[in-house]
Amino acid sequence: MPEISHIGIAVRNLDRAVETYSLLLQKKPELIKEVAEQQVRIAIFRSSGEGPSIELLEPLSVESPVGRFLDKRGEGIHHICIYVSGIEAVLKRLKEKGVRLIDETPLVGAEGHKIAFIHPSSFSGVLIELEEK
Amino acid sequence: MPEISHIGIAVRNLDRAVETYSLLLQKKPELIKEVAEQQVRIAIFRSSGEGPSIELLEPLSVESPVGRFLDKRGEGIHHICIYVSGIEAVLKRLKEKGVRLIDETPLVGAEGHKIAFIHPSSFSGVLIELEEK
Repeated sequence: MPEISHIGIAVRNLDRAVETYSLLLQKKPELIKEVAEQQVRIAIFRSSGEGPSIELLEPLSVESPVGRFLDKRGEGIHHICIYVSGIEAVLKRLKEKGVRLIDETPLVGAEGHKIAFIHPSSFSGVLIELEEK
Repeated sequence: MPEISHIGIAVRNLDRAVETYSLLLQKKPELIKEVAEQQVRIAIFRSSGEGPSIELLEPLSVESPVGRFLDKRGEGIHHICIYVSGIEAVLKRLKEKGVRLIDETPLVGAEGHKIAFIHPSSFSGVLIELEEK
């Protein structure tokens, strides 16, 4: 630890962001897909090794979480996702310590793993996603 | 690629941030140090594997880059640092493509490696640091 699953970046125009990030990362994204439940279109640049992916997130509607983030804060890093073991126990322990959870019980994420979000007020303005490894 | 060296998070109170991040990451930071050139106090949580570190950055002065960031945007992710090979050639290529560089030639970073920053306007609001691997 810390083992980071991915870094999510909120963008207004996915195609344009894919173009500049491809230049930086010297590759094309492995995957571009819509995730209807989260109302986003995502481009995923996977690491060649064990490292985190970079995910560019374009909202499908202004009322989605990423759409509201863009409206309020503008483009930028939206969240970082950290692998944990025993996500229910981790959430319980954090809550006992006074951490403000968004999801008190895990949801099932886009990849079929258990996930939960923690409020940015508890982590210096950073929205944290936990993912069961 | 992408291989991410570290994620830098701007915080107002390093000791308090270390406390909550230690809870999340289930470990203490390996290192807490002042980097005078960049006017910050840093706590570094290294990955147990090949993954990126998490660096918490508290400004030593309000006029430092991190101090100005906090003033303008509040706490949150300040930058992500990506490993590259041949940093001079990478900077040249990015500039030719119209990317706005902060450092046109590399500086020497805190760890003695060549580094350079790229302006967030070119990467969807994300301040990118390049580090020669």
